[in-house]
Amino acid sequence: MKQSALLGDEPQRQALQGLAARGLRLATAESLTAGLLAARLCDVPGASAVFRGGIVAYCDQVKSDLLAVPPESLVAGGAVSAPVARAMALGACGALGADVALSTTGEAGPESASGKSIGTVFVGLAWQGRADAVELHLPGGRNEVRTATVRVALEILLNRIADAAS
Amino acid sequence: MKQSALLGDEPQRQALQGLAARGLRLATAESLTAGLLAARLCDVPGASAVFRGGIVAYCDQVKSDLLAVPPESLVAGGAVSAPVARAMALGACGALGADVALSTTGEAGPESASGKSIGTVFVGLAWQGRADAVELHLPGGRNEVRTATVRVALEILLNRIADAAS
Repeated sequence: MKQSALLGDEPQRQALQGLAARGLRLATAESLTAGLLAARLCDVPGASAVFRGGIVAYCDQVKSDLLAVPPESLVAGGAVSAPVARAMALGACGALGADVALSTTGEAGPESASGKSIGTVFVGLAWQGRADAVELHLPGGRNEVRTATVRVALEILLNRIADAAS
Repeated sequence: MKQSALLGDEPQRQALQGLAARGLRLATAESLTAGLLAARLCDVPGASAVFRGGIVAYCDQVKSDLLAVPPESLVAGGAVSAPVARAMALGACGALGADVALSTTGEAGPESASGKSIGTVFVGLAWQGRADAVELHLPGGRNEVRTATVRVALEILLNRIADAAS
């Protein structure tokens, strides 16, 4: 990746530059945000040097078939849960040949399909074979929840990159 | 899908309503637009009744591995070509369990990685096992090309739905 393409302080640029410096490849697995996170990353020219691709898993079967999310975890806690967020992130690494992946699952409304309250979101991060998930409760309507989730996901990735550097 | 959720004249609502009325499920395969098309479709509450999911294929290996794009077509005409757009759309139907799929591949700039001129875009549409692709030459910078591609892809889908109804 050309360093010049990553000048600037937008979080997506900083994240791609931090991963490029470590030779790590990135993927995404999105339910709630449905492609917004991948698109934000690819706002950056040269993103393809780090970003392999993403899977938008808008139904349970795609989460199971393409991301290897265990069907029992979809039943037990529902698709909006920390175990599913972690499994989605790990599954994205496997399916897309990446070292690091972000995942999103949540309730954006206007009605809850999962039984979780609107604004309940889990962001998963897989990093070289290990995954964590963060639970969020975000205010606002459908668009606000999805936009805020993208922002928080990038912050989580930047924090993890900083941890790896320290 | 609740009919009330699809009131309004935005093309993504009209497309989802048209597919729902025919019992057809939709998927996406995006290179150039990197998730923008899937995200636009999922702006509509209730989209999950029709939209299965999408694959953001930002490198050739993901196009081959997840979308079954023949490696020889990636070599012959390059990833920015009509055969690849058609194969991506058909591959999305297979991978995501859909009847209909839209695909995007193109050069958004600022530099050309494919040798094609900036603004050269192919939009593929697979419809119940058959695929076509349209070549576009779009003006503007990176964001304008990607945004216009999403708009044209939805128009192509709406036109096909109208053909199916006539």
